[in-house]
Amino acid sequence: MKALVLVAHGSRRNASNDEVRALSKELSESLEGAFDFVNAGFLELAEPSIPDAILDSIKEGAQDVVVLPYFLSAGRHVVEDVPAEVDKVREVRPDVNIDIRNHVGGMPGLVSLLCEAALKP
Amino acid sequence: MKALVLVAHGSRRNASNDEVRALSKELSESLEGAFDFVNAGFLELAEPSIPDAILDSIKEGAQDVVVLPYFLSAGRHVVEDVPAEVDKVREVRPDVNIDIRNHVGGMPGLVSLLCEAALKP
Repeated sequence: MKALVLVAHGSRRNASNDEVRALSKELSESLEGAFDFVNAGFLELAEPSIPDAILDSIKEGAQDVVVLPYFLSAGRHVVEDVPAEVDKVREVRPDVNIDIRNHVGGMPGLVSLLCEAALKP
Repeated sequence: MKALVLVAHGSRRNASNDEVRALSKELSESLEGAFDFVNAGFLELAEPSIPDAILDSIKEGAQDVVVLPYFLSAGRHVVEDVPAEVDKVREVRPDVNIDIRNHVGGMPGLVSLLCEAALKP
C-alpha cells in the first residue's frame, strides 16, 4: 500500500491547519488509485506531527510513503527540519520506503501555474 | 503598459528573498508580451515594500498592475495586509487599475500541480 503525507508548517490559526487538512482530502480524491490514503502532518503548532502522520500511514498498511512539503521557500524548514522529522521514522521503520518530494516553491510546474493566474482574472 | 508585481512575505534570510526575486525574473521571461515588466515586493523584512514595488511599476509607465500574492495560506497577510498595502497606492494613484489575484494556495491549478509532484519521483 502507498500513502501520501502532505506536510505543512502548522499555524496558531486553526483555519490555516484546516485548509491543509481539506487540501489533503482533495488530494486523496484526485489521487485515488495511485495512493491508498493521504494524511496531513505538521512541523509545529498543530497535530499530528510529521512522524505521527507517517507512522499512522504505516499502521494503516503503507509500505511506501511519499512526503510532499507544502512550503514555498527552500528555507531551513524544507532543507533541515522536514528531513530530520522523516529520519525519525526511518530509524524505527527502516523497512518502509519514504520519499520526500520537492517543496511547492521548487516544483517545475509552479511558474506555469503563476503565469496562468497572472493572465486569467 | 501592464505590470505584474509578485508579492511575498519577506524573510530575514536573504536567500529566500532572492528566490522570490529570481522567480519574478523567470515570470518576466515567461510572460513577455502579456506583461511589460514584473517586479517583486515584500510585506516586511525585505525591500522594496509592496507600495514601492507598485509605484515603481507606475513610474515605469504601467497603467494596469496585477498583484500576485505568493502565499500558501489564506491567513491575515492575504486577507488583510496585502490588500491594505495595495490600497495605499490606490489612494494616491486612483487613475491606475490594480487587480489582486488569488494567492498560490487558492489557485485552481494547485491541486493538479501537487498531484503531479506526488506521482512523479
